[in-house]
Amino acid sequence: MNQPTEPKADTSGVRRHNLSLVLRTVHEAGETTRAAVAARVGLTRPAVSSLVEQLLELGFLIESGKTFSGQAGRPGTVLKPAGTGPAGLGVEINVDYVTVCVVDLTGADRVRRTERLDNRSAGPGEVLARAARVAAGVLGEADGHGLAPAGAGLALPGLVSGGTVRQAPNLGWHEVDAEDLFAAALTSLRPETAGLAVTSDNEANMAALAELRFGALGDLRTFVHLTGEIGVGGAIVVHGELLRGAHGFAGEAGHLVVDADGPRCRCGSRGCLEQYAGQAALLRAAGSRDVDDLVERAAAADPGALAALTEAGRMLGRALSGVVNLLDPEAVVLGGIYPRLLPWLAPAVSEELSARVVSGLWPPDAGRLRPASTTTDASRGAASLVLHDILTDPLAYARPS
Amino acid sequence: MNQPTEPKADTSGVRRHNLSLVLRTVHEAGETTRAAVAARVGLTRPAVSSLVEQLLELGFLIESGKTFSGQAGRPGTVLKPAGTGPAGLGVEINVDYVTVCVVDLTGADRVRRTERLDNRSAGPGEVLARAARVAAGVLGEADGHGLAPAGAGLALPGLVSGGTVRQAPNLGWHEVDAEDLFAAALTSLRPETAGLAVTSDNEANMAALAELRFGALGDLRTFVHLTGEIGVGGAIVVHGELLRGAHGFAGEAGHLVVDADGPRCRCGSRGCLEQYAGQAALLRAAGSRDVDDLVERAAAADPGALAALTEAGRMLGRALSGVVNLLDPEAVVLGGIYPRLLPWLAPAVSEELSARVVSGLWPPDAGRLRPASTTTDASRGAASLVLHDILTDPLAYARPS
Repeated sequence: MNQPTEPKADTSGVRRHNLSLVLRTVHEAGETTRAAVAARVGLTRPAVSSLVEQLLELGFLIESGKTFSGQAGRPGTVLKPAGTGPAGLGVEINVDYVTVCVVDLTGADRVRRTERLDNRSAGPGEVLARAARVAAGVLGEADGHGLAPAGAGLALPGLVSGGTVRQAPNLGWHEVDAEDLFAAALTSLRPETAGLAVTSDNEANMAALAELRFGALGDLRTFVHLTGEIGVGGAIVVHGELLRGAHGFAGEAGHLVVDADGPRCRCGSRGCLEQYAGQAALLRAAGSRDVDDLVERAAAADPGALAALTEAGRMLGRALSGVVNLLDPEAVVLGGIYPRLLPWLAPAVSEELSARVVSGLWPPDAGRLRPASTTTDASRGAASLVLHDILTDPLAYARPS
Repeated sequence: MNQPTEPKADTSGVRRHNLSLVLRTVHEAGETTRAAVAARVGLTRPAVSSLVEQLLELGFLIESGKTFSGQAGRPGTVLKPAGTGPAGLGVEINVDYVTVCVVDLTGADRVRRTERLDNRSAGPGEVLARAARVAAGVLGEADGHGLAPAGAGLALPGLVSGGTVRQAPNLGWHEVDAEDLFAAALTSLRPETAGLAVTSDNEANMAALAELRFGALGDLRTFVHLTGEIGVGGAIVVHGELLRGAHGFAGEAGHLVVDADGPRCRCGSRGCLEQYAGQAALLRAAGSRDVDDLVERAAAADPGALAALTEAGRMLGRALSGVVNLLDPEAVVLGGIYPRLLPWLAPAVSEELSARVVSGLWPPDAGRLRPASTTTDASRGAASLVLHDILTDPLAYARPS
């Protein structure tokens, strides 16, 4: 990497803070000039120039050859976040796949790999080792792009707190030290990752974070985010912040009861939403082998596929009516397998919402039930946590080359 | 009232703020000394003495004859919030009653009156005029205690925003300017209340506020509060703040679907919680004429009463399992008619919660399902909003006698 042997001598609190301020400003702008940064953050041109020089030296920023005239001052060289150097490693472990991605300082998803496999057939240790294998492969490729992980985010399908999966009904996990197991497995494959900080959270929270940071939500800041996987994950975002509840477990929308006497769920209850609108239940009801097949049959107006989608939509709408009555969100965002299925799910979802939400609460408006962006997922949300850490204190991530 | 003709000349922002700080400190302590206040707020003794003198003069504080030695400095005269002067008027309009109370600066509920009557049989204007009549009577009595309303809080059973009831299914109200109608009716009965500030909110939010400010919750700051009335109201408190949602309508727990094909609800949906656990539904199922009768029969182990309560508890538990899965609260607080009925409701509620909440989320613990305090209700919460305003800027409420 393109970095000096030692961090600068001046590492006082104020300068660290200002380095972060400048780096975040360039990150948010995508590309900008020193003059525009100075105008934005309220520091003098010389102060900003000194900070920018250090960030260039440390490899967090790059200059592009072109110049352009921003709104503030004379034309300047264009500054951009570096596409090399410290990056976020994002890992999503779900019931039937593992996805790993590396996000660079621009926020771009640079390397990405998904491995489909049934994680229910193996113990937690083996599943986390699998995830580490995929991650090691992705990091090898990232190496080639000059990207090195500054930390890892781990998205997991269950109740997560303090680095541990307390409960993951669909995987049959109970009290699994996921962060430690993953870190150990990764270090055994890539010893240079020893000591890498790993942060974990529920995959639905991570997916909602990705939507918030990289999606197309515009001004929308209070929403409920449901992800259709084998299970159905849920996350609640209020004024741009995840609602975590008293113990960090809020959002378990997949286990909302839609039919009290319905089929037994792995959580121990009966008639949970995911027994109707989860991927496994939906494919079984439709008699489809996978989501591609289901989409193809629905597009061809196959009655079995359409009936299964309508029923799933009805149950989704029923559960969501409770969520909307309780939380009064601006919108409901559907991710995971749902965006591709929305043309056939949406009518039944909307019908239930209209019938069951207290009327002032859900005025009809096309934008209120919406698909998640195609470029966001839980692994990207997980990587964004690392990105956030780098942007908050870049000096802590400046390493000798 | 015991107040000077003119407020003090020195009404700068800092002094106003410090007057509030001192008054709030005395309010929270109940009784204290100048020295203890100075130690608490970090101002000098002379500064605090000057502020206290002004608050005494304006009638917000009183001195009691006794002295006591606090932890800071020499013994001092005891200071208390006045039991006379500006007070909060709280008004709850519900489906089958109106309750009005006046809360003084100590937080005590000094005058209170409930009138039972069917508010569904009259239009909104008449109901608000009824409430104003009860309020006028209560204010007459408060007068005798030297208490004058500094504002009014209005608790209403529906979706409330901007002073208007958008929708109150159980009253059949739609877009009712409740604040204006109430203020006009009250002014016609007591002309001296002309210009009185009126604030309105959902009754369930007001009840949760009362629980938070005057209840016995201890350190508990993240909870869901359900009030059993004709309807079932809900409020969500996260880290000590009401969760209001995007439009202020969050918490409509009474319309959570517990049986999708159940009886038609006034909200337009079917099988809403309040069709099973609301007061009207519960009394009908039990064949009881009122809650007293139901309690008496349940205590005598009457099978019809017990069966109705078990079924209501089962539906409450079913709805609450969704709420807990979604919000991960520390506790569920049941108010309204529920505290008296809890001995017979609780077993079924707890059974459903154990069976249906994702397991890590609701560890068994007696304190997690709890009755609301007997001294809190929506009218007291409504009055507490006024109290909060007075404590935040006492000078604004200092009036010539």
